[in-house]
Amino acid sequence: MRLIDKDTRKEIDIRIEDIKKRLAENGQDAMLVSSNANIYYTTLRFFRGYVYIPVVGKPIWFLIKPDSFEKEEDLVLIRKPENIPDCLQRLGYVMPGTIGLEFDSMSYSDVERLKAVFPEAKAANGSRILSKARMVKTDWEIDRMREDGIHQAEVYRRVTRCYKEDMTDVQLQIEIERILRLEGCLGFIRTSGNLMDINLGSVIAGDNADTPSPYDFTMGGAGIDPSLPGGADGTTLKPGQTVMVDMCGSFNGYQTDMTRVWRIGEIPKLAYKAHQCSINILRACESMGKPGVAVADLYNVAIDIARHEGITDYFMGHRQQASFIGHGVGIELNEPPVVMARSKDILLENMTLALEPKFVIPGVGAVGVENTYVVTTSGLKSLTIFPEEIQEL
Amino acid sequence: MRLIDKDTRKEIDIRIEDIKKRLAENGQDAMLVSSNANIYYTTLRFFRGYVYIPVVGKPIWFLIKPDSFEKEEDLVLIRKPENIPDCLQRLGYVMPGTIGLEFDSMSYSDVERLKAVFPEAKAANGSRILSKARMVKTDWEIDRMREDGIHQAEVYRRVTRCYKEDMTDVQLQIEIERILRLEGCLGFIRTSGNLMDINLGSVIAGDNADTPSPYDFTMGGAGIDPSLPGGADGTTLKPGQTVMVDMCGSFNGYQTDMTRVWRIGEIPKLAYKAHQCSINILRACESMGKPGVAVADLYNVAIDIARHEGITDYFMGHRQQASFIGHGVGIELNEPPVVMARSKDILLENMTLALEPKFVIPGVGAVGVENTYVVTTSGLKSLTIFPEEIQEL
Repeated sequence: MRLIDKDTRKEIDIRIEDIKKRLAENGQDAMLVSSNANIYYTTLRFFRGYVYIPVVGKPIWFLIKPDSFEKEEDLVLIRKPENIPDCLQRLGYVMPGTIGLEFDSMSYSDVERLKAVFPEAKAANGSRILSKARMVKTDWEIDRMREDGIHQAEVYRRVTRCYKEDMTDVQLQIEIERILRLEGCLGFIRTSGNLMDINLGSVIAGDNADTPSPYDFTMGGAGIDPSLPGGADGTTLKPGQTVMVDMCGSFNGYQTDMTRVWRIGEIPKLAYKAHQCSINILRACESMGKPGVAVADLYNVAIDIARHEGITDYFMGHRQQASFIGHGVGIELNEPPVVMARSKDILLENMTLALEPKFVIPGVGAVGVENTYVVTTSGLKSLTIFPEEIQEL
Repeated sequence: MRLIDKDTRKEIDIRIEDIKKRLAENGQDAMLVSSNANIYYTTLRFFRGYVYIPVVGKPIWFLIKPDSFEKEEDLVLIRKPENIPDCLQRLGYVMPGTIGLEFDSMSYSDVERLKAVFPEAKAANGSRILSKARMVKTDWEIDRMREDGIHQAEVYRRVTRCYKEDMTDVQLQIEIERILRLEGCLGFIRTSGNLMDINLGSVIAGDNADTPSPYDFTMGGAGIDPSLPGGADGTTLKPGQTVMVDMCGSFNGYQTDMTRVWRIGEIPKLAYKAHQCSINILRACESMGKPGVAVADLYNVAIDIARHEGITDYFMGHRQQASFIGHGVGIELNEPPVVMARSKDILLENMTLALEPKFVIPGVGAVGVENTYVVTTSGLKSLTIFPEEIQEL
């Protein structure tokens, strides 16, 4: 694995300083990071082991599998987590009185094991500290996500060429997956929690958009097997349908989330009206989405606009309606905040959000646009620049 | 979602009876299942909610998202897990004294929340009970896996057609992914634990096979990005290299795991010798792998055969060597048992195992065969039937 270059070191230092500040504010003396997403966040690589971040002093990378790394500073080889306290003492670190552990992303057994590693310390939930830190992106992170958006748009530009008459939604999705991968997509969507099983994304056509799914996605779909009940279901694509493409934007450890809609032949006016309503909602959110604004207000303005158009029956689904119109995005596809009425979060500069006000029109399919945005002092700026109107397949 | 047909009901009943027996043996009065893999195992579908399995009485499905299901017996709608005790009481169930929760697969926060739902009960680890139950497959499950193996072989038959001169390992993998998906692959590998980030599998060529990876796979590879350091790294495929294909066999909620090797042009004798040694190891394991045999003995016989051939330096890697030659497989790609020297598990009839004795030859690449087997009274029977010799691309 690569040695750390100067830019990477600088980026890591920015993140660690921020986490240290948050640890101090929360009365935690140190944090032991062990989930994949957070190891990547705190080291810009992935390894098997732990990152120890004390409020005072340098962080230490504890590596379990020695051979996968070149020798580096701040790196200690261990056989198992139980070796950590001895190493800390040898390096002159004071044992933590309170230790932050990832209660939300590590298994109960893993956390109990780590608690026993620090028997004198009080264990506290470090997950929220890390997710709060990750909510606000650095310029480096926003550059990565901008890069993702450019690649993703490059692929969406070629969606029409993937289509052939009488193909199924699954067949169309497979061709999009192929060009995504050829464009550099890693082929893997990093998600949080256990309601996010997904392959490379969602292509939903016609009434499959109205099939409820148990997963935490805004749109449903039956899927092709009861073990993965979401997304494309093998429907043959037919004139009069919309095809909603919400595929993977994961090219470099970060992700963008973007949805566009295609149509086959003619679709009714209601579908166009709802689609335009989605665009209007995004424009309204873009101009109001400045630091200090309540996340809940983005949701409220969206539902107000839909209500004004008289189309709330189709908003965020028809048979089953999602109660949120967006979510944070970054290393994981589903990061906080959730953009919903009961959100308590406030927009901060350099937060990144995916907003996806969508509608499901019975007999036609899903319409609406999703963009990934960065919060700036002049409002939301899109990282997923691509024509928003409904295009013909 | 579909209603339950008679065969599915029968299959579910077999599993529930087995889990109840194991609960009783372990002194647990009931189990509350909430992980995706175990909800699928106990209901043959996936939903958002919980499966309550008491030692005495019928199991109950507690569903959080009501609209995704037709009305069915044994199904109770809830808003949140805190509603469960009231429902149990209303239905006349006795509150459990000991409740099994999935300590190994649910987050610390989730388990703590469920513990508080049953404040009077002692919480016990239910994960091991479920994984022991899942280790031994029913005939229905083996049929699903046999079906997977047939599809996977059908795809491997077309690998040669995916290859074009001067393509990279990633480009070859993308074309294999496409035919996998067209064959019906769900495009999603369900794994357990956090050392299994993977896209649709691994294609490793030449010396990339010798790049250590932090993940829990037998073979390494650098990957194309530090956020996902495993598998194909973008190497251009060249004469004199082997290309090891270990791609996804996930078509129906179950999985098979199969590896085959292709070569480009001529490769040295040592590569053929090691590959033949892998086949010899599999033949030895197949005949000895009967109920009652120690899993560790499969590993021991493998290393003995490699030692006898004088090629242990290349066994299970060269720069970094894996300490296991196989693993259980089923709903998840990595199930117990792990086939390693310190395994304490004993083979049981209808266990399914993937065995993958592999070698890495410096300057050439990886060789070896992986099959998924079912344990029978006459030895291991392969579910992944496909020619085992090295084929030319």
